[in-house]
Amino acid sequence: MKLKIGMSAVLAVSAFASVALAGGDIYLGSDEMKKATQIYFDRCAGCHGMLRKGALGPNLLPKKTKAMGTETLEYIIYNGTPGGMPDWGASGELTKAETKLMAKFIQLPPVSPPEKSMADMKKSWKLLVPPEKRPTKPETTRNWENYFGIVLRDVGKVAIVDGDTKELVSIVPSGFATHILRTSKSGRYMYAIGRDGKASVIDLWMKKPQNVAEIRTCNDARSIDTSKAKGYEDEYAVVGCYWPPSIVTLKGDTLEPIQIVSTASYTYDTGEFTREARVASIVANHHKPEWVINVKETGQVWLYNYADPRNPDIHMLMAERYLHDGGWDLTKRYFLVAANARNKVVAVDTKEGEVAAIIPSGGTKPHPGRGANINHPKYGPLWATGHIGSNDISFIGTDPTYHPQYAWRVVKKISLPGDGGGNLFIKTHPACKYIIADRPVNPDRKLQTQLYVIDKNKLEVVKTIKIPKKYVKERTVKVNGKKIKVKPRGPVHIEFNKDGDEFWVSVWGNKLLPSAILVYDSDSLKLKKAITGDWVRTPTGKFNVFNTKYDIY
Amino acid sequence: MKLKIGMSAVLAVSAFASVALAGGDIYLGSDEMKKATQIYFDRCAGCHGMLRKGALGPNLLPKKTKAMGTETLEYIIYNGTPGGMPDWGASGELTKAETKLMAKFIQLPPVSPPEKSMADMKKSWKLLVPPEKRPTKPETTRNWENYFGIVLRDVGKVAIVDGDTKELVSIVPSGFATHILRTSKSGRYMYAIGRDGKASVIDLWMKKPQNVAEIRTCNDARSIDTSKAKGYEDEYAVVGCYWPPSIVTLKGDTLEPIQIVSTASYTYDTGEFTREARVASIVANHHKPEWVINVKETGQVWLYNYADPRNPDIHMLMAERYLHDGGWDLTKRYFLVAANARNKVVAVDTKEGEVAAIIPSGGTKPHPGRGANINHPKYGPLWATGHIGSNDISFIGTDPTYHPQYAWRVVKKISLPGDGGGNLFIKTHPACKYIIADRPVNPDRKLQTQLYVIDKNKLEVVKTIKIPKKYVKERTVKVNGKKIKVKPRGPVHIEFNKDGDEFWVSVWGNKLLPSAILVYDSDSLKLKKAITGDWVRTPTGKFNVFNTKYDIY
Repeated sequence: MKLKIGMSAVLAVSAFASVALAGGDIYLGSDEMKKATQIYFDRCAGCHGMLRKGALGPNLLPKKTKAMGTETLEYIIYNGTPGGMPDWGASGELTKAETKLMAKFIQLPPVSPPEKSMADMKKSWKLLVPPEKRPTKPETTRNWENYFGIVLRDVGKVAIVDGDTKELVSIVPSGFATHILRTSKSGRYMYAIGRDGKASVIDLWMKKPQNVAEIRTCNDARSIDTSKAKGYEDEYAVVGCYWPPSIVTLKGDTLEPIQIVSTASYTYDTGEFTREARVASIVANHHKPEWVINVKETGQVWLYNYADPRNPDIHMLMAERYLHDGGWDLTKRYFLVAANARNKVVAVDTKEGEVAAIIPSGGTKPHPGRGANINHPKYGPLWATGHIGSNDISFIGTDPTYHPQYAWRVVKKISLPGDGGGNLFIKTHPACKYIIADRPVNPDRKLQTQLYVIDKNKLEVVKTIKIPKKYVKERTVKVNGKKIKVKPRGPVHIEFNKDGDEFWVSVWGNKLLPSAILVYDSDSLKLKKAITGDWVRTPTGKFNVFNTKYDIY
Repeated sequence: MKLKIGMSAVLAVSAFASVALAGGDIYLGSDEMKKATQIYFDRCAGCHGMLRKGALGPNLLPKKTKAMGTETLEYIIYNGTPGGMPDWGASGELTKAETKLMAKFIQLPPVSPPEKSMADMKKSWKLLVPPEKRPTKPETTRNWENYFGIVLRDVGKVAIVDGDTKELVSIVPSGFATHILRTSKSGRYMYAIGRDGKASVIDLWMKKPQNVAEIRTCNDARSIDTSKAKGYEDEYAVVGCYWPPSIVTLKGDTLEPIQIVSTASYTYDTGEFTREARVASIVANHHKPEWVINVKETGQVWLYNYADPRNPDIHMLMAERYLHDGGWDLTKRYFLVAANARNKVVAVDTKEGEVAAIIPSGGTKPHPGRGANINHPKYGPLWATGHIGSNDISFIGTDPTYHPQYAWRVVKKISLPGDGGGNLFIKTHPACKYIIADRPVNPDRKLQTQLYVIDKNKLEVVKTIKIPKKYVKERTVKVNGKKIKVKPRGPVHIEFNKDGDEFWVSVWGNKLLPSAILVYDSDSLKLKKAITGDWVRTPTGKFNVFNTKYDIY
């Protein structure tokens, strides 16, 4: 009768209490509870919240779920919904038995997730190669500033690929379902953060780059960044945690933990206490020792000064819900972040330390990634975002000084062809005349397997690039003697090389089979090369060292 | 089976769950639970914490309390302990039945206390006299800057007494067990905060001062202050809450709520998440728009910039546990606050925004109130604190610039005569050559009913003042036909008048009978006047308008 995931004494009780109180209609044994809790944690909490109070997905509290009943819940979990709920059963992620288990589990009162202390963190900390045993200058003759770090998401690894030669340089282990990579200001260190809160740092100066330190900062995390201000280069790293909702500062070279700050607070608008106030994204300011920290549920942007990391200074800005991802404008003074529940983009003026504007994004569920910047002949500096829930690519003016008439509004909106939205990332490079957009969560197979090319001057879609069929076709794979059909989703996440003359996209496959990373010429838009190999499994985000360290997009 | 104090759905369950799980040996019905929860809240939570995790008192979690058993707990609750636990039964505060109820209650798992949202707060907000209907200049011919606000604690009232004439000017209702009073920078507004989180503001310009606004900011609070920096005079008020642990900013003249910020975070030393991170004290900086906010359990001092109150800037300083009360040095640059669990005093440099020093206080459980300042011929500026747990009065040097050899250490320590500690407050005034100390929680009746006079130059106790017997003798009162013996505790809390030529002390009585406020000549140390009357019930803290607005002590 004991849950084993570290629940607090009082709350652990409540799960069983509810079983009794529910009148015996739903009962889960301790093994089932343990399994369901883990599945919920891995698959459901991201959208529905660790406490099941809802975020991008609706709340899953007993009042609602019990009214829906086991059968309806089973159907939805298995088949998904057009609103964005994945088809966990049909896609083979969950078995029928697991689907039923989850349908029951979410009718019980939420169990309390574990806390994590500094002592827990320190226990997990591994200094694999101490700083004094690391290279004092690059050991490689490769052009390491043009390396790409490539997340191999479902196999928990990061591949380092030479951007010049397209050769695999190294594969290093990372956390479960690595979410993103970031580099230190010098570019030497590449940081990975897993969905399981495991942070790791790779030393790119090594002949064969490898992890030099790792630490489990929390139980669920989505963001990591480093100190990029003058005088603080490579000094600190910071992890933004989903659970426990917190900001963890680490030493940059060793990942030794320095400080934890809780983000639990009150929603900016209704003033309700929110234990689950998750850190959605973090970005380092280049001009001052400050991280821009976006707290999803409370709708607060925290300007977090790390000059004295044990004694941080936090300027709390009330913004909009739910803050998710975003990027810098061209000048790196303004940070633009999506408030996806309200279809808004928040422009944060980091120089003045205030919200400059809250802008209707022009579409449904904006998802900019880091967005794309243009210096447009008519509108001046623009920052663009796509949307998950609609076909819109919106261009927002970001220059109130010289282009005040265009600032902080959508000056132009274009529509990706067809229906169904589903854009996740757009990306450009100053040397490229195009913005490239993916659409991996569009339900239409054809639209899902194309890239969309937007001309930066015309601000229109000038071309669609069909991914060659061989990279996205359905294939059959044998697992435990059983044949399973596997079909890659399509291209996802675009990244340019250092010079901006090529862009790379991942083919979002299943970990049972290798897929590919496709390299296109960014001028002719022709496929230059497909990076393949048995190691290319579930490639997703790619991060060019040079572009990441300078935030070029 | 439903608790009526607003618990969250999930956690309300856990109390009953535990009943079932406890194997039937302890069972409380819903009415008993409700009553016990309220008693716990009013009497126990202050020292043992709302979540029963302990603070000044030990934790009361089931693991420990079940091992102790009902009889032992009953005995302790009834009779108290030498360690500081009050004798709730023997003193008549709790009946035998209530004592037994509480002994059972604390063996059950803690129930979850209520949350409070901005909407809840707004519902409780009452603008009794709108600003436009208030006086535009003082309506009284009295010397209102020498008014004393006097807390009549157990009757939930505040008395306004003319410091010149000693006449009662007005009695206004306040929250339950009002903790402190503070004034606005102009002195016009006097703010009260109740243990029940009710804030109220009295307009002293009225002929008969009355409450002009009130609001229930939280469920338990201990501190209130106002905006005192240039350009922000009388603009804002701020409440520091015990539960929910938070900082609530209000409009100064209307108490309209502006912002809530949670103080739940991680302990400064062990990095453990602490939901119950209570705001112990708040003080307004005179030099900049900043409040110094002392968070008890996490040991953090927050420098809270209120210039843009919706978007506060918080500089978090890691200090020591458990932060409690404190006051300014002579220059109002350094704030000195007791860390009572570690017998330390933390000196915060508000100019540099850093902890200047953490100083062993020289005694047990320092309790400075706001402390007392001296400009000593040899040591230079000193700040003094007494102790609850020992007889020590310690003098700490506060001038690192001109007296660096004495700065941030106890340069002199003197001992109050006899044993048993029990000092709560010391107070002085620049015009008085003495510091006056009380000792109301000393167990010895003689020591308890005296005042102690310390010479500011000699730094020694030069006199003890016996409170005349008639003010502290035991008396009998009939309640519901039953005779009850009532004995005032002795003098508590000293406050000087504006000119510093007299000091006032309260006789800490029982609300069943009136007691007295005694006025002494601060030079001859002779009793000048006893303020008496039927209204003088449980007088405790007294706050002279002039001295409070300028933080003179």
